[in-house]
Amino acid sequence: MRAAVYTGAKIFEVQDRTDVPLDPDEVQIDVTYTGICGTDLHIFHGDMDARVAIPAVIGHEMSGRIAAFGSNVTGWATGEPVTVMPLSWCGDCPACRAGNQHICQRLNFIGIDSPGAMQQHWNVPADTLVRLPADLSLAAAALVEPVAVAVHDVRRAELKAGDKVVVVGGGPVGLLIATVAAQAGADVVLIEINSYRRKVAEEVGLVVVDPTTVDVSTLIDSWTEGAGAAVAFEVSGAAAGLDTAVDVLAVRGRLVLVAIHPTPRPINLHRFFWRELILVGARLYDRSDFERAVELVAAGSIPTAALISRIEPIENIAQAFAALESGGDIMKVLINCQPIDSEAAK
Amino acid sequence: MRAAVYTGAKIFEVQDRTDVPLDPDEVQIDVTYTGICGTDLHIFHGDMDARVAIPAVIGHEMSGRIAAFGSNVTGWATGEPVTVMPLSWCGDCPACRAGNQHICQRLNFIGIDSPGAMQQHWNVPADTLVRLPADLSLAAAALVEPVAVAVHDVRRAELKAGDKVVVVGGGPVGLLIATVAAQAGADVVLIEINSYRRKVAEEVGLVVVDPTTVDVSTLIDSWTEGAGAAVAFEVSGAAAGLDTAVDVLAVRGRLVLVAIHPTPRPINLHRFFWRELILVGARLYDRSDFERAVELVAAGSIPTAALISRIEPIENIAQAFAALESGGDIMKVLINCQPIDSEAAK
Repeated sequence: MRAAVYTGAKIFEVQDRTDVPLDPDEVQIDVTYTGICGTDLHIFHGDMDARVAIPAVIGHEMSGRIAAFGSNVTGWATGEPVTVMPLSWCGDCPACRAGNQHICQRLNFIGIDSPGAMQQHWNVPADTLVRLPADLSLAAAALVEPVAVAVHDVRRAELKAGDKVVVVGGGPVGLLIATVAAQAGADVVLIEINSYRRKVAEEVGLVVVDPTTVDVSTLIDSWTEGAGAAVAFEVSGAAAGLDTAVDVLAVRGRLVLVAIHPTPRPINLHRFFWRELILVGARLYDRSDFERAVELVAAGSIPTAALISRIEPIENIAQAFAALESGGDIMKVLINCQPIDSEAAK
Repeated sequence: MRAAVYTGAKIFEVQDRTDVPLDPDEVQIDVTYTGICGTDLHIFHGDMDARVAIPAVIGHEMSGRIAAFGSNVTGWATGEPVTVMPLSWCGDCPACRAGNQHICQRLNFIGIDSPGAMQQHWNVPADTLVRLPADLSLAAAALVEPVAVAVHDVRRAELKAGDKVVVVGGGPVGLLIATVAAQAGADVVLIEINSYRRKVAEEVGLVVVDPTTVDVSTLIDSWTEGAGAAVAFEVSGAAAGLDTAVDVLAVRGRLVLVAIHPTPRPINLHRFFWRELILVGARLYDRSDFERAVELVAAGSIPTAALISRIEPIENIAQAFAALESGGDIMKVLINCQPIDSEAAK
């Protein structure tokens, strides 16, 4: 089978590999599509070489069908469509014992810390499987994982119907958060500097603002009649985006921190004191978030077609990463992991 | 009557002033003691001249007795011991309408934004009065306001009995937070660099650590068996204190931001993401906090004697501020506002 192998900064090699034997508690998946995530880009840049075991097969946003299962696995049939919640926790650390397994202190994030889905045959623990409806497009289903991120982030926001919400950053995750928040009854404004991303967001019905031409604080102050927003999501990863997310919040507003800020970032703590603001870190998802994400995708509530900018065969993985690198007119890229001569994915 | 008047950076003048006529909804208080707060020190330094109307009588931590009342005031008798919750809100801004009057967007903080208690006769709206037990020491009662701050901060922490809690900063407010948290059933470790403040904290029964000689993160990791603390209070105002408060927290731990950090401060946001930490701004108090503070002081649950380092007559206000300025062996200083020939305060 073919596998895309990360061998060091900016290099993927597509190799022939033999299948890995199945453990009794594992399932082998014929991978259909694997999405490229921001974290995969960080790996591609070489920023995570200390964490990734090179040569590494990465990838954790995917869809596929069950190909085989280990001797202990019950309840699944070959051919069934699935996605994977790519988390394996220890069950024994303080975080796990407190019920926060998804951020286990020894978490194995499958696809980063152990082999991922950018290959044709992928073995995963059966307890990571998430069932998909038979009639769901497997391209759309490859977005379930980032949708689960958005569901989790919105849950951390504790937002109520009618809340005025600002999402700072309109990449795939920002757009998904805006969509899920709107589904939950919020009034949403999305802030994005990239004109292509603004266009995609507008096309799916979101209200979008360009912060380079509009004073966002003044706009939100007016929109909220002087109150400020109940919730802001920081999804930009930028210093200016963080400042905006703090500035727009109402008294006791919640800032949900979604983006990764790898180094300490100056933040207006006086505003947190003065308005009794709340900052909430949000990472990954739990099974309830994943199952809700499947429901939303299956119900057609997520604009998956607008989000998927292109689909590249696994042989073209280098081009796929290069396209994301170049930025510009692109949102989500999927890798088609099926053999070239197979039937088209449904 | 005598009044201590702030006339500009580092200058107080003690003046004879005539009483201000009472409005119908006001009460005149014979002020007994007024404590000097960190904010008063900021004013003394000239840092708040843009906010304070010079010449200004400041002061908002106090105790006294009712001397007279306006024509609309009922339910109070002259001679009754009182303290004041020094907040006057508009009732009409979004924060007030949402039930957060204590952080009203147009808050009048009495003693900063309008005349305060460093004078012998102080007029305040009757609805700011807080009743004191007849047998409560008026020196102890002058600490009710900072105790209310601590009660509010602990309430914002949502701590549970048995939680392991770190308080960073052992000045008066830090020591009060540690005391109130311990009263609420928490296991508390206080972090303080000043040896005198450590000694005071130890004398009142707190566990205190000197971060200049002990690696706090290692200590807390060991104390919590690898989990981290459920709650940290940042009361130091220092960059290193903020870092410590972030470092010690468990997965989903809460950092209650009490200290004022006037300029944007770098903070380890990656840790907030990774552990899904929560930062909670905490400012002032509401009436329930104030009434709980009176109960705690009246019950002898607050080490008021250990906290009051000295009491100076109003004529010595310059020396009182100078003593706090010099730092060292000092916690709280009270100004005795009574006429020199009056009976000693009870």
